[in-house]
Amino acid sequence: MQRKSFSNLMCPIARGLERVGEWWSILILRDAFYGLTRFDQFQKSLDIAPNMLTRRLNALVEEGLLERSQYCEKPPRFEYLLTERGRDFRPVLLAMLAWGNKHFAPEGEAVVLVDVKTGQQVNPVVVDANTGKLITGGEYAFAPGPAATEGFHRRMALREQV
Amino acid sequence: MQRKSFSNLMCPIARGLERVGEWWSILILRDAFYGLTRFDQFQKSLDIAPNMLTRRLNALVEEGLLERSQYCEKPPRFEYLLTERGRDFRPVLLAMLAWGNKHFAPEGEAVVLVDVKTGQQVNPVVVDANTGKLITGGEYAFAPGPAATEGFHRRMALREQV
Repeated sequence: MQRKSFSNLMCPIARGLERVGEWWSILILRDAFYGLTRFDQFQKSLDIAPNMLTRRLNALVEEGLLERSQYCEKPPRFEYLLTERGRDFRPVLLAMLAWGNKHFAPEGEAVVLVDVKTGQQVNPVVVDANTGKLITGGEYAFAPGPAATEGFHRRMALREQV
Repeated sequence: MQRKSFSNLMCPIARGLERVGEWWSILILRDAFYGLTRFDQFQKSLDIAPNMLTRRLNALVEEGLLERSQYCEKPPRFEYLLTERGRDFRPVLLAMLAWGNKHFAPEGEAVVLVDVKTGQQVNPVVVDANTGKLITGGEYAFAPGPAATEGFHRRMALREQV
Protein backbone atom coordinates (compact mmCIF):
# COMPACT_ATOMS: atom_id res chain seq x y z
CA MET A 1 0.00 0.00 0.00
CA GLN A 2 1.68 3.17 -1.17
CA ARG A 3 1.48 6.48 0.58
CA LYS A 4 0.61 8.82 -2.18
CA SER A 5 -0.24 12.27 -1.03
CA PHE A 6 -0.07 14.57 1.90
CA SER A 7 -3.80 14.65 2.40
CA ASN A 8 -3.87 10.89 2.69
CA LEU A 9 -1.16 11.00 5.31
CA MET A 10 -3.18 13.40 7.43
CA CYS A 11 -6.51 11.67 6.96
CA PRO A 12 -7.41 9.22 9.74
CA ILE A 13 -9.48 7.17 7.31
CA ALA A 14 -6.48 6.70 5.02
CA ARG A 15 -4.26 5.93 7.97
CA GLY A 16 -6.70 3.38 9.24
CA LEU A 17 -7.01 1.75 5.84
CA GLU A 18 -3.26 1.63 5.57
CA ARG A 19 -3.07 -0.40 8.76
CA VAL A 20 -5.87 -2.77 7.98
CA GLY A 21 -4.25 -3.41 4.64
CA GLU A 22 -6.86 -4.98 2.46
CA TRP A 23 -9.84 -7.17 1.96
CA TRP A 24 -8.38 -10.33 3.46
CA SER A 25 -7.28 -8.50 6.56
CA ILE A 26 -10.78 -7.21 7.20
CA LEU A 27 -12.21 -10.71 6.84
CA ILE A 28 -9.54 -12.07 9.22
CA LEU A 29 -10.59 -9.42 11.74
CA ARG A 30 -14.22 -10.36 11.21
CA ASP A 31 -13.37 -13.99 11.94
CA ALA A 32 -11.40 -12.97 15.02
CA PHE A 33 -14.60 -11.34 16.31
CA TYR A 34 -16.35 -14.63 15.60
CA GLY A 35 -13.88 -16.17 18.04
CA LEU A 36 -11.47 -17.81 15.62
CA THR A 37 -7.88 -17.71 16.88
CA ARG A 38 -5.85 -20.41 15.14
CA PHE A 39 -4.17 -20.48 11.76
CA ASP A 40 -6.09 -23.56 10.61
CA GLN A 41 -9.41 -22.03 11.69
CA PHE A 42 -8.80 -18.88 9.67
CA GLN A 43 -7.64 -20.94 6.72
CA LYS A 44 -10.71 -23.14 6.77
CA SER A 45 -13.07 -20.20 7.19
CA LEU A 46 -11.53 -18.03 4.50
CA ASP A 47 -10.29 -20.67 2.06
CA ILE A 48 -7.14 -18.59 1.66
CA ALA A 49 -3.70 -19.73 0.50
CA PRO A 50 -1.45 -20.45 3.51
CA ASN A 51 1.32 -18.08 2.42
CA MET A 52 -1.19 -15.28 1.94
CA LEU A 53 -2.75 -15.98 5.33
CA THR A 54 0.70 -15.96 6.99
CA ARG A 55 1.46 -12.64 5.35
CA ARG A 56 -1.82 -11.04 6.38
CA LEU A 57 -1.64 -12.36 9.96
CA ASN A 58 1.94 -11.10 10.33
CA ALA A 59 0.90 -7.70 9.00
CA LEU A 60 -2.00 -7.51 11.45
CA VAL A 61 0.36 -8.44 14.31
CA GLU A 62 2.87 -5.85 13.13
CA GLU A 63 0.20 -3.16 13.03
CA GLY A 64 -0.87 -4.09 16.54
CA LEU A 65 -4.37 -5.36 15.69
CA LEU A 66 -3.67 -8.96 16.64
CA GLU A 67 -1.21 -10.47 19.06
CA ARG A 68 0.49 -13.81 18.64
CA SER A 69 0.32 -15.91 21.76
CA GLN A 70 1.70 -19.39 22.47
CA TYR A 71 -0.96 -21.74 23.78
CA CYS A 72 0.99 -24.99 23.65
CA GLU A 73 4.68 -25.63 24.33
CA LYS A 74 5.17 -29.11 22.91
CA PRO A 75 4.62 -28.89 20.06
CA PRO A 76 4.87 -25.09 19.92
CA ARG A 77 1.49 -23.74 18.85
CA PHE A 78 0.34 -20.16 18.52
CA GLU A 79 -2.95 -18.37 18.39
CA TYR A 80 -3.92 -14.89 17.26
CA LEU A 81 -5.88 -12.71 19.64
CA LEU A 82 -7.48 -9.32 19.08
CA THR A 83 -5.67 -6.47 20.82
CA GLU A 84 -7.46 -3.36 22.05
CA ARG A 85 -6.66 -1.71 18.72
CA GLY A 86 -8.13 -4.71 16.93
CA ARG A 87 -11.25 -4.77 19.09
CA ASP A 88 -11.75 -1.08 18.43
CA PHE A 89 -12.21 -1.97 14.77
CA ARG A 90 -15.56 -3.57 15.65
CA PRO A 91 -17.69 -0.47 14.85
CA VAL A 92 -16.28 -0.44 11.31
CA LEU A 93 -17.39 -4.04 10.83
CA LEU A 94 -20.80 -3.31 12.33
CA ALA A 95 -21.31 -0.38 9.98
CA MET A 96 -20.22 -2.61 7.11
CA LEU A 97 -22.66 -5.31 8.22
CA ALA A 98 -25.57 -2.86 8.21
CA TRP A 99 -24.58 -1.52 4.80
CA GLY A 100 -24.12 -5.00 3.32
CA ASN A 101 -27.46 -6.16 4.69
CA LYS A 102 -29.27 -3.12 3.35
CA HIS A 103 -27.84 -3.14 -0.14
CA PHE A 104 -26.46 -6.55 -0.98
CA ALA A 105 -28.84 -9.08 0.51
CA PRO A 106 -31.73 -9.20 -1.99
CA GLU A 107 -32.81 -12.63 -0.71
CA GLY A 108 -32.86 -11.47 2.93
CA GLU A 109 -30.30 -11.13 5.68
CA ALA A 110 -27.99 -14.10 6.21
CA VAL A 111 -26.18 -12.57 9.18
CA VAL A 112 -27.66 -10.24 11.74
CA LEU A 113 -26.50 -8.77 15.00
CA VAL A 114 -28.44 -9.78 18.10
CA ASP A 115 -28.57 -8.86 21.76
CA VAL A 116 -27.15 -11.96 23.44
CA LYS A 117 -29.51 -11.74 26.43
CA THR A 118 -32.78 -11.06 24.64
CA GLY A 119 -32.06 -12.55 21.23
CA GLN A 120 -33.53 -9.34 19.77
CA GLN A 121 -32.11 -8.21 16.45
CA VAL A 122 -30.02 -5.09 16.72
CA ASN A 123 -29.81 -2.30 14.16
CA PRO A 124 -26.32 -0.76 14.27
CA VAL A 125 -26.26 2.95 13.45
CA VAL A 126 -23.67 5.67 13.94
CA VAL A 127 -24.62 8.47 16.33
CA ASP A 128 -22.84 11.28 18.12
CA ALA A 129 -21.86 9.88 21.54
CA ASN A 130 -22.43 13.30 23.12
CA THR A 131 -25.98 13.91 21.90
CA GLY A 132 -27.17 10.47 20.78
CA LYS A 133 -28.25 12.03 17.46
CA LEU A 134 -27.98 10.03 14.25
CA ILE A 135 -25.12 11.32 12.10
CA THR A 136 -26.44 12.05 8.62
CA GLY A 137 -25.29 14.30 5.80
CA GLY A 138 -25.87 18.02 5.88
CA GLU A 139 -25.83 18.54 9.64
CA TYR A 140 -22.34 17.18 10.15
CA ALA A 141 -19.10 17.78 8.32
CA PHE A 142 -15.44 16.86 8.39
CA ALA A 143 -13.26 19.71 9.66
CA PRO A 144 -9.56 20.24 10.34
CA GLY A 145 -8.60 19.07 13.83
CA PRO A 146 -5.97 20.44 16.23
CA ALA A 147 -3.13 18.62 14.46
CA ALA A 148 -4.08 19.77 10.95
CA THR A 149 -1.34 21.65 9.15
CA GLU A 150 -1.88 24.94 7.34
CA GLY A 151 -1.85 23.22 3.95
CA PHE A 152 -4.47 20.79 5.14
CA HIS A 153 -6.64 23.66 6.37
CA ARG A 154 -6.46 25.23 2.90
CA ARG A 155 -7.43 21.98 1.18
CA MET A 156 -10.36 21.47 3.52
CA ALA A 157 -11.55 25.04 2.99
CA LEU A 158 -11.88 24.40 -0.74
CA ARG A 159 -14.25 21.52 -0.26
CA GLU A 160 -18.00 21.70 -0.14
CA GLN A 161 -19.33 18.69 1.61
CA VAL A 162 -22.41 16.61 0.92
CA MET B 1 -11.61 -9.66 -5.98
CA GLN B 2 -12.25 -13.36 -5.95
CA ARG B 3 -15.16 -15.04 -4.29
CA LYS B 4 -13.54 -17.79 -2.31
CA SER B 5 -15.90 -19.53 0.00
CA PHE B 6 -19.51 -20.04 0.78
CA SER B 7 -19.33 -18.22 4.09
CA ASN B 8 -17.95 -15.16 2.35
CA LEU B 9 -20.81 -15.27 -0.11
CA MET B 10 -23.35 -15.20 2.68
CA CYS B 11 -21.59 -12.64 4.84
CA PRO B 12 -22.83 -9.07 4.35
CA ILE B 13 -19.42 -7.71 5.33
CA ALA B 14 -17.72 -9.73 2.61
CA ARG B 15 -20.40 -8.73 0.13
CA GLY B 16 -19.96 -5.10 1.04
CA LEU B 17 -16.19 -5.29 0.72
CA GLU B 18 -16.58 -6.96 -2.61
CA ARG B 19 -18.54 -4.00 -3.90
CA VAL B 20 -16.34 -1.31 -2.48
CA GLY B 21 -13.40 -3.11 -4.03
CA GLU B 22 -10.32 -1.73 -2.37
CA TRP B 23 -8.40 1.01 -0.73
CA TRP B 24 -8.65 3.51 -3.57
CA SER B 25 -12.37 3.07 -3.84
CA ILE B 26 -12.88 3.89 -0.18
CA LEU B 27 -10.79 7.04 -0.54
CA ILE B 28 -12.78 8.03 -3.64
CA LEU B 29 -15.97 7.63 -1.62
CA ARG B 30 -14.44 9.67 1.20
CA ASP B 31 -13.66 12.44 -1.29
CA ALA B 32 -17.16 12.23 -2.71
CA PHE B 33 -18.47 12.96 0.81
CA TYR B 34 -16.09 15.93 0.86
CA GLY B 35 -18.02 17.18 -2.16
CA LEU B 36 -15.60 16.27 -4.95
CA THR B 37 -17.40 15.24 -8.12
CA ARG B 38 -15.05 15.64 -11.09
CA PHE B 39 -12.31 13.39 -12.41
CA ASP B 40 -9.63 16.05 -12.10
CA GLN B 41 -10.67 16.81 -8.52
CA PHE B 42 -10.36 13.18 -7.48
CA GLN B 43 -7.06 12.89 -9.32
CA LYS B 44 -5.61 15.93 -7.63
CA SER B 45 -6.82 14.89 -4.20
CA LEU B 46 -5.67 11.30 -4.41
CA ASP B 47 -2.58 11.66 -6.60
CA ILE B 48 -3.72 8.51 -8.40
CA ALA B 49 -2.78 7.35 -11.92
CA PRO B 50 -5.53 8.34 -14.40
CA ASN B 51 -6.06 4.80 -15.70
CA MET B 52 -6.40 3.52 -12.14
CA LEU B 53 -8.84 6.30 -11.27
CA THR B 54 -10.91 5.57 -14.38
CA ARG B 55 -11.04 1.91 -13.42
CA ARG B 56 -12.05 2.59 -9.83
CA LEU B 57 -14.70 5.18 -10.81
CA ASN B 58 -16.18 2.83 -13.38
CA ALA B 59 -16.32 0.04 -10.81
CA LEU B 60 -18.06 2.30 -8.29
CA VAL B 61 -20.59 3.32 -10.97
CA GLU B 62 -21.12 -0.33 -11.91
CA GLU B 63 -21.72 -1.30 -8.28
CA GLY B 64 -24.23 1.52 -7.94
CA LEU B 65 -22.31 3.61 -5.40
CA LEU B 66 -21.73 6.55 -7.76
CA GLU B 67 -23.65 7.77 -10.76
CA ARG B 68 -22.14 9.41 -13.78
CA SER B 69 -23.95 12.56 -14.76
CA GLN B 70 -23.33 14.95 -17.65
CA TYR B 71 -22.99 18.55 -16.47
CA CYS B 72 -21.79 20.14 -19.71
CA GLU B 73 -22.79 19.37 -23.28
CA LYS B 74 -20.11 21.18 -25.27
CA PRO B 75 -17.58 19.91 -24.54
CA PRO B 76 -19.15 16.81 -22.98
CA ARG B 77 -18.20 16.74 -19.31
CA PHE B 78 -19.28 14.33 -16.60
CA GLU B 79 -19.32 14.31 -12.86
CA TYR B 80 -19.65 11.50 -10.33
CA LEU B 81 -22.36 11.79 -7.70
CA LEU B 82 -23.05 9.60 -4.70
CA THR B 83 -26.14 7.44 -5.05
CA GLU B 84 -28.26 6.40 -2.07
CA ARG B 85 -26.17 3.21 -1.84
CA GLY B 86 -23.02 5.32 -1.86
CA ARG B 87 -24.36 7.74 0.76
CA ASP B 88 -25.29 4.81 2.96
CA PHE B 89 -21.58 3.98 3.14
CA ARG B 90 -21.08 7.09 5.32
CA PRO B 91 -21.34 5.24 8.68
CA VAL B 92 -18.47 2.96 7.62
CA LEU B 93 -16.28 6.00 6.94
CA LEU B 94 -17.32 7.62 10.23
CA ALA B 95 -16.43 4.47 12.16
CA MET B 96 -13.10 4.39 10.31
CA LEU B 97 -12.50 8.06 11.15
CA ALA B 98 -13.03 7.42 14.86
CA TRP B 99 -10.77 4.37 14.79
CA GLY B 100 -8.02 6.15 12.84
CA ASN B 101 -8.14 9.14 15.18
CA LYS B 102 -7.95 6.96 18.27
CA HIS B 103 -5.12 4.72 17.14
CA PHE B 104 -3.14 6.38 14.39
CA ALA B 105 -2.96 10.05 15.25
CA PRO B 106 -0.18 10.25 17.87
CA GLU B 107 0.36 13.95 17.15
CA GLY B 108 -3.34 14.77 17.57
CA GLU B 109 -6.39 14.67 15.30
CA ALA B 110 -5.96 16.18 11.86
CA VAL B 111 -9.58 15.62 10.82
CA VAL B 112 -12.58 15.67 13.09
CA LEU B 113 -16.31 15.54 12.58
CA VAL B 114 -18.26 18.61 13.66
CA ASP B 115 -21.88 19.65 14.03
CA VAL B 116 -22.26 22.21 11.24
CA LYS B 117 -24.58 24.46 13.26
CA THR B 118 -22.72 24.52 16.56
CA GLY B 119 -19.18 23.77 15.41
CA GLN B 120 -19.01 21.24 18.27
CA GLN B 121 -16.84 18.22 17.71
CA VAL B 122 -18.78 15.03 17.32
CA ASN B 123 -17.78 11.60 18.56
CA PRO B 124 -19.16 8.94 16.18
CA VAL B 125 -20.05 5.67 17.90
CA VAL B 126 -22.13 2.68 16.86
CA VAL B 127 -25.28 2.04 18.87
CA ASP B 128 -28.40 -0.07 18.52
CA ALA B 129 -30.98 2.17 16.83
CA ASN B 130 -33.77 0.53 18.84
CA THR B 131 -32.33 1.03 22.33
CA GLY B 132 -29.63 3.67 21.84
CA LYS B 133 -27.19 1.39 23.67
CA LEU B 134 -23.52 1.31 22.67
CA ILE B 135 -22.67 -1.91 20.87
CA THR B 136 -19.69 -3.51 22.55
CA GLY B 137 -18.37 -7.07 22.73
CA GLY B 138 -19.97 -9.66 24.97
CA GLU B 139 -23.50 -8.32 24.95
CA TYR B 140 -23.99 -8.55 21.21
CA ALA B 141 -23.20 -11.28 18.73
CA PHE B 142 -23.53 -12.11 15.05
CA ALA B 143 -26.26 -14.66 14.39
CA PRO B 144 -27.76 -16.35 11.34
CA GLY B 145 -30.50 -14.23 9.76
CA PRO B 146 -33.69 -15.33 7.96
CA ALA B 147 -31.83 -15.97 4.69
CA ALA B 148 -29.08 -18.09 6.24
CA THR B 149 -28.80 -21.58 4.79
CA GLU B 150 -28.53 -24.71 6.89
CA GLY B 151 -24.80 -24.98 6.25
CA PHE B 152 -24.32 -21.41 7.34
CA HIS B 153 -26.28 -22.11 10.54
CA ARG B 154 -23.93 -25.02 11.29
CA ARG B 155 -20.82 -22.90 10.74
CA MET B 156 -22.12 -20.13 12.96
CA ALA B 157 -23.01 -22.62 15.70
CA LEU B 158 -19.37 -23.74 15.89
CA ARG B 159 -18.12 -20.27 16.59
CA GLU B 160 -17.62 -18.74 20.00
CA GLN B 161 -17.63 -15.02 19.71
CA VAL B 162 -15.59 -12.42 21.56
